[in-house]
Amino acid sequence: MMEKGRLEAFSDGVIAIIITIMVLEMKVPHGDSLATLQPLIPVFISYVLSFVNVGIYWNNHHHLMHAAKHINGSVLWANIHLLFWLSLFPFASGWMGENHFAPIQVAFYGIVSLMSGVAYYFLAQCLIAVNGKKSTLAIAVGKDKKGLISIILYALAIGLSFISAWIGLFIYVVVACMWFIPDKRIEDKLADNNPE
Amino acid sequence: MMEKGRLEAFSDGVIAIIITIMVLEMKVPHGDSLATLQPLIPVFISYVLSFVNVGIYWNNHHHLMHAAKHINGSVLWANIHLLFWLSLFPFASGWMGENHFAPIQVAFYGIVSLMSGVAYYFLAQCLIAVNGKKSTLAIAVGKDKKGLISIILYALAIGLSFISAWIGLFIYVVVACMWFIPDKRIEDKLADNNPE
Amino acid sequence: MMEKGRLEAFSDGVIAIIITIMVLEMKVPHGDSLATLQPLIPVFISYVLSFVNVGIYWNNHHHLMHAAKHINGSVLWANIHLLFWLSLFPFASGWMGENHFAPIQVAFYGIVSLMSGVAYYFLAQCLIAVNGKKSTLAIAVGKDKKGLISIILYALAIGLSFISAWIGLFIYVVVACMWFIPDKRIEDKLADNNPE
Amino acid sequence: MMEKGRLEAFSDGVIAIIITIMVLEMKVPHGDSLATLQPLIPVFISYVLSFVNVGIYWNNHHHLMHAAKHINGSVLWANIHLLFWLSLFPFASGWMGENHFAPIQVAFYGIVSLMSGVAYYFLAQCLIAVNGKKSTLAIAVGKDKKGLISIILYALAIGLSFISAWIGLFIYVVVACMWFIPDKRIEDKLADNNPE
Repeated sequence: MMEKGRLEAFSDGVIAIIITIMVLEMKVPHGDSLATLQPLIPVFISYVLSFVNVGIYWNNHHHLMHAAKHINGSVLWANIHLLFWLSLFPFASGWMGENHFAPIQVAFYGIVSLMSGVAYYFLAQCLIAVNGKKSTLAIAVGKDKKGLISIILYALAIGLSFISAWIGLFIYVVVACMWFIPDKRIEDKLADNNPE
Repeated sequence: MMEKGRLEAFSDGVIAIIITIMVLEMKVPHGDSLATLQPLIPVFISYVLSFVNVGIYWNNHHHLMHAAKHINGSVLWANIHLLFWLSLFPFASGWMGENHFAPIQVAFYGIVSLMSGVAYYFLAQCLIAVNGKKSTLAIAVGKDKKGLISIILYALAIGLSFISAWIGLFIYVVVACMWFIPDKRIEDKLADNNPE
Repeated sequence: MMEKGRLEAFSDGVIAIIITIMVLEMKVPHGDSLATLQPLIPVFISYVLSFVNVGIYWNNHHHLMHAAKHINGSVLWANIHLLFWLSLFPFASGWMGENHFAPIQVAFYGIVSLMSGVAYYFLAQCLIAVNGKKSTLAIAVGKDKKGLISIILYALAIGLSFISAWIGLFIYVVVACMWFIPDKRIEDKLADNNPE
Repeated sequence: MMEKGRLEAFSDGVIAIIITIMVLEMKVPHGDSLATLQPLIPVFISYVLSFVNVGIYWNNHHHLMHAAKHINGSVLWANIHLLFWLSLFPFASGWMGENHFAPIQVAFYGIVSLMSGVAYYFLAQCLIAVNGKKSTLAIAVGKDKKGLISIILYALAIGLSFISAWIGLFIYVVVACMWFIPDKRIEDKLADNNPE
C-alpha cells in the first residue's frame, strides 16, 4: 500500500501547487483605485474556471486511486503524464485570461483540457490493466462515460472556438458543470465495495 | 480513513503553498541601504496578518478534520471551495500592503476574509450533515460561535473601511486575536472524545 | 517506519515543487497571435525534457526508498544533497530554453544532470551502507548499471556540447529514454521481495 | 498520532516550498555568454548557505517531532511561529546575495537566522512541557546545547557584520558546519528509546 500512498502524496503535491500558482497570474495591480482591478476580471474568470477544472481532476484522481488496489511502473508514468498536462493549466489559463478570451487562446486552453482528459483516460486504463477487469475500479470506471464525452466536447470546443470563442468557453463551463454535479451512483458503489 | 487522509494532505499542500507564496509579494529590493526596506514595511505588516490568518485556518481545519469520522463528495467540494477563497489571500494581502492600507484594498481584504469564513462555515455544516448531529464534531462546532461572530465582524469591517481603513484593519487584528488565544475548552473536549 | 515516511514526504514535496515551478519559466506572452508562442517553443522543449528527467528521479527515488528498510542521519543529508541539485533544474532548464540550446547552456544543463546523477549514486550507497550488502536494496541497486552509465554519458555530453550543442542535447534525450523504458527486472525483483 | 502526522506534513510542505522558492531568486539571465552568470555567483553562494540552513532545520524538526509523543495547541502555534521566521529566508537570502554580502544585508540575514533559532527553541520547550521532563524528547533536547550556542553566535554575527560583513558570514558558515556534522550521540539515544 506504501507505493500507492506515495503516488497519491506526490500527485497531491503537484496538483496543490498547480492550483495555487495559477493565482500568481493575477499580478497585484499598481494603483489603489477599483479601476485597477478591471483588467484582472477576465484573468479572474479564467482562474475560477481553471481552479474548478483542476479541482475536478483532484476529486476524480482521489476516487480513482481510492478504488485501485494495485499499481505498477506503467501507472507511475501514466500518472506523471497526467500531471504534465495539468501543469500547463496555469500557462493556458493565464494566456486566455490576459487576452480576454481571444479565439486562439480559448482553443489552446481546449487543447490542454483535451490532453488532460486523454491522459486521465490512459491512467484509468493502466489501472484497470493492473487491477483486473472485474475489480471495483474497472466496474466504476467502465460504466462511467463522462470521460469520453468530455474528450469529444473538448475536441468540438477547440474547433468551434475559431467561429466564436464564447462557444468554446461555454462548452468548457458545460463540461465543468457535468463533473461538478455529484455522481452519487459511483460514490455509493465505491462505498459499498470499499467499506472503511 | 484513507479518504480523509488524502483530503488533509491536499489541504495541507495548498495551505502550505498559500502561506509561503505570500512572502513572494515582498520583492527583494534593489539597493543596499536600510531605506530600501521602508516601502516594504506595510507589505510586511500585511504579510504577518495574512500569515496568522492562514495559520488560524490551518489550525481550525486540523481540529475540524480531526473530529470528523466520515466524509463524502460534498465535503470534498466544500473543502475545495474553502481553498479557493484562501488562495486569494496572497493577492488581497499583496494589494493591501502595496497600497499602504488604502480603503478599497482593506475592504477587499475583508471580502476575501469574509468569504473564507463563510466557506469554512459551509464546510463545517457539510461535515455535520455526514457525521450526524450527535457526533463529537457537531458538538464541538455547534457550541463554537466564533465562526459566526467573525463573519459578522468582517462584514462590519468591509463597510467601516470606507470611513477609515484603520478601523477595518483593527477589526481584522481583533478577529485574528480572538482565534489566536487558545480555546482550551474545545481542545479538551476533542481530547476527551478522541483519546489518542 | 515514521522516519522513512517523512523523508519520502519531504522529498515528494520538494520534487513536486521543482517539477511545477519549471512551468513558471514559460512566461505568459503578451499578444494574442499564435506567433507570440514561437519564442516559447525551445523553452517548452526544455520544459518537457526537464519534466521527464525530474519525473525519472521521482520514480527512481520511489523505488529506492521503497526497497530501503532503514535510514540514518547520513541518508537524510545525502537526500537533501540530491534535492539541492534537482532544485537547480528549473534554472538550468529555463536558461537553456531561453538561449535556444546554445553550447554553454546545454553544457550547464549537463553539469546539473551529472551532479544529480552523482548525488543519487551517493544516496544509494548511503542506503546500502545502512541496510547491508545483502539487503533487497543492495541487490537491486548493485546489479543496476544504469546510474553509472548515465553519469559517464552526461560527462561526455558536457564536453561534446562545445563541438555541437545538439550532440549534448541528443545524449540527454538518450539517457532519459534509457530510464523511461520500464525496467521490469528490478520492479519484479522488488515485488518478489516486498510482497504488499 | 494523527495530530502529529498532520503537523509534520504541513511543516514538510512549508519547508519544502521555502527551500525551493529560494532558487527563484536566481533569475534566469538574459544572454548566452558565461559572463552573464557572474552576477549570480553571490546569489548562488547565498542560496547554498540558505539551502543548508533550511535543510538543517528540517533535519532537526524531523528528529524533534520523531521524539515527541504528544502535542497540543501551543505546539501547533509554536510550530507556525517557527515556519514564519523560516519563510523569511528566501527574502533575506535573495537580498544578501543581490547586494554581494553588504553589511546591512548580512546583519539582516543574521536576524532571520537568530529569530528562527529562538522560535525553534520555543517549539522544543513547548514540546517538553507537553511530553514531560522525563520524556525521551526532554532528555535529548536538554543535553543538546547547540541551539543556545547558535543563538549566541547569531547575535554576535549581527553586531560584527557592521565591522566586517565577512565575519558575520563566516559565523553563519561555522554555525551551519556545527549542525551539519552528524551528532551520533543524540541519534543513537533516539534509536535506543524509539526502536522502529
